[in-house]
Amino acid sequence: MIKSKDRLVSAQQVSQHATPNDCWIVVDRQVWDVTDFLEEHPGGSAIILKYAGRDATTAYAEVHSPSVLTRNLSPEKCKGMLDESTVDGTWDTPAAAKDAGKTAIAVVPDASAKPPLHTLISAHDFEEAASRTASKKTWAFYSSAATDLITRDANKACFDRIWFRPRVLRNVRDVDTRTRMLGIDSPLPLFVSPAAMAKMIHPDGECAIARACEAKGVVQGAAPSGKFFFQLYVNRDRSKSAELLRECSANPTIKAIFVTVDAAAPGKREADERVKADESISVPMAPSQARNDKKGGGLGRVMASFIDPGLTWEDMKWVREHTHLPVYLKGVMSADDAILAMEAGLDGILLSNHGGRNLDTSPPSIVVLLELQRRCPQIFGRMEIYVDGGIRRGTDVLKAVCLGATAVGMGRSALFATNYGQEGVEHLIDIIQDELEVAMRNIGITSLNQAHPDLVHTGDIDHLRMEQWGLTP
Amino acid sequence: MIKSKDRLVSAQQVSQHATPNDCWIVVDRQVWDVTDFLEEHPGGSAIILKYAGRDATTAYAEVHSPSVLTRNLSPEKCKGMLDESTVDGTWDTPAAAKDAGKTAIAVVPDASAKPPLHTLISAHDFEEAASRTASKKTWAFYSSAATDLITRDANKACFDRIWFRPRVLRNVRDVDTRTRMLGIDSPLPLFVSPAAMAKMIHPDGECAIARACEAKGVVQGAAPSGKFFFQLYVNRDRSKSAELLRECSANPTIKAIFVTVDAAAPGKREADERVKADESISVPMAPSQARNDKKGGGLGRVMASFIDPGLTWEDMKWVREHTHLPVYLKGVMSADDAILAMEAGLDGILLSNHGGRNLDTSPPSIVVLLELQRRCPQIFGRMEIYVDGGIRRGTDVLKAVCLGATAVGMGRSALFATNYGQEGVEHLIDIIQDELEVAMRNIGITSLNQAHPDLVHTGDIDHLRMEQWGLTP
Amino acid sequence: MIKSKDRLVSAQQVSQHATPNDCWIVVDRQVWDVTDFLEEHPGGSAIILKYAGRDATTAYAEVHSPSVLTRNLSPEKCKGMLDESTVDGTWDTPAAAKDAGKTAIAVVPDASAKPPLHTLISAHDFEEAASRTASKKTWAFYSSAATDLITRDANKACFDRIWFRPRVLRNVRDVDTRTRMLGIDSPLPLFVSPAAMAKMIHPDGECAIARACEAKGVVQGAAPSGKFFFQLYVNRDRSKSAELLRECSANPTIKAIFVTVDAAAPGKREADERVKADESISVPMAPSQARNDKKGGGLGRVMASFIDPGLTWEDMKWVREHTHLPVYLKGVMSADDAILAMEAGLDGILLSNHGGRNLDTSPPSIVVLLELQRRCPQIFGRMEIYVDGGIRRGTDVLKAVCLGATAVGMGRSALFATNYGQEGVEHLIDIIQDELEVAMRNIGITSLNQAHPDLVHTGDIDHLRMEQWGLTP
Amino acid sequence: MIKSKDRLVSAQQVSQHATPNDCWIVVDRQVWDVTDFLEEHPGGSAIILKYAGRDATTAYAEVHSPSVLTRNLSPEKCKGMLDESTVDGTWDTPAAAKDAGKTAIAVVPDASAKPPLHTLISAHDFEEAASRTASKKTWAFYSSAATDLITRDANKACFDRIWFRPRVLRNVRDVDTRTRMLGIDSPLPLFVSPAAMAKMIHPDGECAIARACEAKGVVQGAAPSGKFFFQLYVNRDRSKSAELLRECSANPTIKAIFVTVDAAAPGKREADERVKADESISVPMAPSQARNDKKGGGLGRVMASFIDPGLTWEDMKWVREHTHLPVYLKGVMSADDAILAMEAGLDGILLSNHGGRNLDTSPPSIVVLLELQRRCPQIFGRMEIYVDGGIRRGTDVLKAVCLGATAVGMGRSALFATNYGQEGVEHLIDIIQDELEVAMRNIGITSLNQAHPDLVHTGDIDHLRMEQWGLTP
Repeated sequence: MIKSKDRLVSAQQVSQHATPNDCWIVVDRQVWDVTDFLEEHPGGSAIILKYAGRDATTAYAEVHSPSVLTRNLSPEKCKGMLDESTVDGTWDTPAAAKDAGKTAIAVVPDASAKPPLHTLISAHDFEEAASRTASKKTWAFYSSAATDLITRDANKACFDRIWFRPRVLRNVRDVDTRTRMLGIDSPLPLFVSPAAMAKMIHPDGECAIARACEAKGVVQGAAPSGKFFFQLYVNRDRSKSAELLRECSANPTIKAIFVTVDAAAPGKREADERVKADESISVPMAPSQARNDKKGGGLGRVMASFIDPGLTWEDMKWVREHTHLPVYLKGVMSADDAILAMEAGLDGILLSNHGGRNLDTSPPSIVVLLELQRRCPQIFGRMEIYVDGGIRRGTDVLKAVCLGATAVGMGRSALFATNYGQEGVEHLIDIIQDELEVAMRNIGITSLNQAHPDLVHTGDIDHLRMEQWGLTP
Repeated sequence: MIKSKDRLVSAQQVSQHATPNDCWIVVDRQVWDVTDFLEEHPGGSAIILKYAGRDATTAYAEVHSPSVLTRNLSPEKCKGMLDESTVDGTWDTPAAAKDAGKTAIAVVPDASAKPPLHTLISAHDFEEAASRTASKKTWAFYSSAATDLITRDANKACFDRIWFRPRVLRNVRDVDTRTRMLGIDSPLPLFVSPAAMAKMIHPDGECAIARACEAKGVVQGAAPSGKFFFQLYVNRDRSKSAELLRECSANPTIKAIFVTVDAAAPGKREADERVKADESISVPMAPSQARNDKKGGGLGRVMASFIDPGLTWEDMKWVREHTHLPVYLKGVMSADDAILAMEAGLDGILLSNHGGRNLDTSPPSIVVLLELQRRCPQIFGRMEIYVDGGIRRGTDVLKAVCLGATAVGMGRSALFATNYGQEGVEHLIDIIQDELEVAMRNIGITSLNQAHPDLVHTGDIDHLRMEQWGLTP
Repeated sequence: MIKSKDRLVSAQQVSQHATPNDCWIVVDRQVWDVTDFLEEHPGGSAIILKYAGRDATTAYAEVHSPSVLTRNLSPEKCKGMLDESTVDGTWDTPAAAKDAGKTAIAVVPDASAKPPLHTLISAHDFEEAASRTASKKTWAFYSSAATDLITRDANKACFDRIWFRPRVLRNVRDVDTRTRMLGIDSPLPLFVSPAAMAKMIHPDGECAIARACEAKGVVQGAAPSGKFFFQLYVNRDRSKSAELLRECSANPTIKAIFVTVDAAAPGKREADERVKADESISVPMAPSQARNDKKGGGLGRVMASFIDPGLTWEDMKWVREHTHLPVYLKGVMSADDAILAMEAGLDGILLSNHGGRNLDTSPPSIVVLLELQRRCPQIFGRMEIYVDGGIRRGTDVLKAVCLGATAVGMGRSALFATNYGQEGVEHLIDIIQDELEVAMRNIGITSLNQAHPDLVHTGDIDHLRMEQWGLTP
Repeated sequence: MIKSKDRLVSAQQVSQHATPNDCWIVVDRQVWDVTDFLEEHPGGSAIILKYAGRDATTAYAEVHSPSVLTRNLSPEKCKGMLDESTVDGTWDTPAAAKDAGKTAIAVVPDASAKPPLHTLISAHDFEEAASRTASKKTWAFYSSAATDLITRDANKACFDRIWFRPRVLRNVRDVDTRTRMLGIDSPLPLFVSPAAMAKMIHPDGECAIARACEAKGVVQGAAPSGKFFFQLYVNRDRSKSAELLRECSANPTIKAIFVTVDAAAPGKREADERVKADESISVPMAPSQARNDKKGGGLGRVMASFIDPGLTWEDMKWVREHTHLPVYLKGVMSADDAILAMEAGLDGILLSNHGGRNLDTSPPSIVVLLELQRRCPQIFGRMEIYVDGGIRRGTDVLKAVCLGATAVGMGRSALFATNYGQEGVEHLIDIIQDELEVAMRNIGITSLNQAHPDLVHTGDIDHLRMEQWGLTP
């Protein structure tokens, strides 16, 4: 039997395999059939399809180490070696340019390439770019939320339904977005929510986020340096969590402990379940690998499996005993639990429905904040209230602050920005900072101290707010 | 004249008839023009189109008795006998694979095949699969509802507009979905609503549903074994209904009698009317066959023709006299009638608008439940309240239970699951059970006893609730 | 110069002109270029396109007198005489069947043919059929309404937002839709609103409507026989109106005078304006022809030009003096004017916004009816209240009657039904009657006397109702 | 090397480059490849594509000076000189007409041509025409608004959600739209808002608007003659603004000073930012050119850069000292600031959110007007209240006047009308005047003095109105 390496393939033969259903590329003279690999490519299929039927050596070298193809593809996918004597002047021309009518890739070749970072001018732009350029699984894992996505979408929509009441003729020459949170200074009332598996979208992954946060002075969840807070998922095995708490308390960069309480059961994230998981991936926190079972290939489900659903208010005392750091609850979704947290003497809460990922039709976080304003405004003087979910704009940040929030978290948007590494996350923070300044000026305030509920009108969502406990009128 | 059986047709000739507008297939060497038959095929056209221009003998034999083609097609549709000497190696290749650009069937060949059961992970998935793979008439009959479909769609939408108020830091390690209904135990607060003509989608029909319910321990309407209740449509000829009641009362598996009161007149289900009925079908309950008349081909209309629209509260006494079983009303759509039922000493009611099939703009069932919470909360202590209509998710089940329902019924979804026989219905029940457990954990309860109205917020649909009798403010 | 009649054209040549942009047909051997005529054809272009490139003699003879083509087309459109020696066996095959890919008409040939009457099972179906088969101008004139169509669409939508509260266990074996209106009996609470220019859609025009109404015993506006009321548009020249009133009063078939008060100025019906009018058309009431001017080609504007915008409550006394018939106001749009009408001693009012044709964002008629229920329920005992606008279903009729209406009018739907002549209008009335009976049974009433406001719930539109005069809270 | 000027190109060769992806044209015998230039062409690509593959000399000469092509295109885009001996009779035929199936430009050739002015019958029509025929940058600059366009769209939508309560039987023979504003007479309660850079859509630019306003007697912002008010953007350098105020005060045609207070920070108009600016354009007010930077190419941002964000109520006294003219505030967005303005003794205010361009989710202007009606109706007797934002119809004008506005401004619509020069703007004013008269007659008033809040019902937007200061109920 002739080994593929000994077989010569002409440039013309390669050219004939230039569609998503039949795609060969040449790398370092080796001719590979990458048809089956297209969907699995972590960087998305589009970048490969740009070189369908052609030589991808240069593009390949910019991104990959030489052995990646060999490791990822089985030997029989190697169709032979390129017969370089057959290469003529048209060999470098993209197939699309030669005959737009013939190959499928001609249809949207540019749509799938990452647009240059400087052309992205909003958080939406980062999301849109990720939807087109991330792999199918990455997009599914990042964007998915519980079942019918009602909470995920309402998180954002409720911000849009709050109206400003801008004041005019205030001197807004100098505007200052700085605030104080977790006992430390922050350049703006924003933190990056802890988010898992950032490496799916960029090789630098969490490091890119951490470096960007450090550069910008922004607080981040669960990072190795800079200012950050630690998001604790209490383990069924308490001793492991105790160990973690001790480590955190000894780490001077950790400013606070956030105990996650909105993940009593992993949500059913259907888009994530529907896309097969790469079972070689190690999932954070869970002492296991990704897996595909009869419920699907959901990474989120695997990650949640170690979390203790038996956590109670009693455990908060246990946490207190294991750390001197301020303790916050992440995942409060009702004014009643907020009041309990205050009464329990906690340092603060993060109103969060986990980005709509755990329980669909959980209330939008901003609605719960509104409930607090109505039912116990004194809570804002007694502890710090954070909010996440649906934040896409500087105006969203400002609305939350007007309604009493100390700061807000961004999760998904930061992941989408990681598509461009550290620089992407920094650019996202700059965008939000700029939008926030514009909004502050336009409602007539120069410092966040001046933000207050009268600067917004919530008449369009007031009916979503629970006025009091109990159905009776 | 040469008889078609004597005419030889080459494989290549057959191949040239491979589109929806010109479709030949080969069965047992006979070449048939099935173009006109495509739309009439009870199993849908897609399955035939998969064999357009090819040999369908094997697939055919799996489903049909040999004479079906002969009985259904007129002789001139037989184009001759396949000349087997012309069959070469490509003969078994689907036309689509050969030249995707040439044949119309290439466009959606897979879209019409039933996806594997394990890839269905929600009730919506079953509906979506049925919409693509059931015959036109089956889909029309199952999915249709009265006139403009407003009630059908509002049934579901109103569940989506109810928000949870999840509580945190409750120990939810062990969650129990069991409940008691109709005096017996049930693994979850769910029953399968009686639904007619399940054989249209699967040869096992009602038996598949019954076996699945028995396997899962779930109550079902009108089944021959297992735990079930009997849905009584009172006949114009009372003696026939009396006979039925006697039989039911003597049958130890029957736990209750549900008297249908929401079908005083058959609704106008336009999608059902628009598709011609197969007049050879026997319609349950009605002592007649399906028929096509000037109103259309509606099966629902025929089925309803024997029901007595003269039923009154007096008749409930008559029912009581003919059975020792608990008696429930199915089809209550106002708090006022619920109160009358309580006052009449009935054992319970099923709030139902018949899936929106009878009167369009009947109120969504969950809204009537809400009215009961507001106008006479004491009713929940006095009799069992069931709800059906629009249930698609475990969260829907939990919302109804929070608002006071003993259990909820699923009708259409069970029919759509029957597409996969018994196994499909079991899978559907597993999905709902799983979603219910996740939702219970995430709102912080471990037993349905802990469900109560404060765990939901209905501010977005409160205006749809009738506060009191009378328009005056 | 050779006259076109002497020129021979082969069948093959004719076949080459078979698209909407280049369309020849043969009638009585004459070959005509009807490309420019397509858009103007009163019967729509589709019927002609079915014969594009072919012989249309038979189809033509069924509809037109021999001279129509000659009169409508200029001589140079005659391309010659068909050379019959060139006609072969394929000549009668529709172009579409020959090569679906080549001619534009193949795409929707059947979509434009009128579906058989018996397949239409709702008022919507008649509208849908008219939208496809009426001429562009007819569709524009019938379907158009003032500016942004907000009122036209809200008329219908507000009915859809009213929910029934059906009652069960009432004996509804025998249901009776009869009522009394204008002092006479009517088989159902429905009348056909006066509507102009019915001949645009069917040669029988108004006669078809009148004969259908007579056959069904239904009251109609402005018809020559049967039971009807007369819709008076008061002329700027009062003597002409006085003359009309005298004639009406002497006519025993006329039961009432409806004075139109909602057309003080002709509305701006943009769809109507945008389509050129055939200036040979005589417009009813207006002593002039249709015309195209700088505002467009609106027929509605021309029709309104003679109406006196100077009408006042004083004039109602003048009307009373000129007739012994009961006098009604057509076009009341506020509870305040309804009360004034009652105080003026009028016999009744028709709540109407002219189908949304005159002033966009006029209130939906059913909302005004609701205002009356709230602000002066006693009015229903003092005079008859009619409603039109947005009635498409028997359920709409029943909702209006529940809220106090004596009967409702259908305008546009009747015009769309006239597409099928007298038979079409009768079929429409049968449909509404049937839908009304089904709805009555399903809400638990057997006579319209039992209809009352408690059987509907208006919570979804209550905020559109003006509670009282004045903005102050 | 042969210079392109020496190369002969046949007419047939030129014809083969007739698509948007490959487009050659001939101007003065020179053959140019304008493919890359299509998108950059300030007049839009459509006009060039009309001559794709053909001779554009005549059309070109009508618009451009001879050197424009040479200046804009690099020499290598010149493909040679047309070989005139190859020009035959079909050379002037548009490619589209020759073979509609072959060239992309055939698809929408007419869609991009300006429709004749007389076919435009509403403000929407002008917008629609501009969206198709203006250059990409012009459309982006004119139509864009801040971030998610929520305020821009709500401005219009809130008008649509206000319902008239028309009164009948009022004598409306003679209707008078005249009013008094800024101490002078106006034929209707409308002014043209100041809008920058009208030359982008028409060479006459601001002059066309000014001449149209003068012809119609309508007040306009910032024009060189006729009745107008001056919109003051206070400069960071107050001496420049003082100078401007002195000039205005000395100019007898200037009737009032409007101090802009809703532009404390330039809004983020993303559509504007996304399209590259032509850096040769001079931007009004700003002492600089358009530029492209890392935020994008937004013209609006550049224009705003000189505005002083330090303006306060104190400065209003300073303005008063520098002019005898009445002083108004433009950009009030809350009842509270309206009251402050009244207390400060200003002559009036313009409720405006700058067309949604500055701060997204600023309240719709009409909602602020409604707040004033509710919270301090006496304000309407003390100063003039103007409104802009979302005005598209005569009915919108009338609604604002009913709710107390003296007059309303149109900005974007006037720019879109400038597409047709002076004549276009006049036509727009005529349309609004006509719509206003129709609306007045149909609600039963003959003079704007009779307009009052009872003629409208705002129940659908009342919840968007801020009842009082403070969130507490």
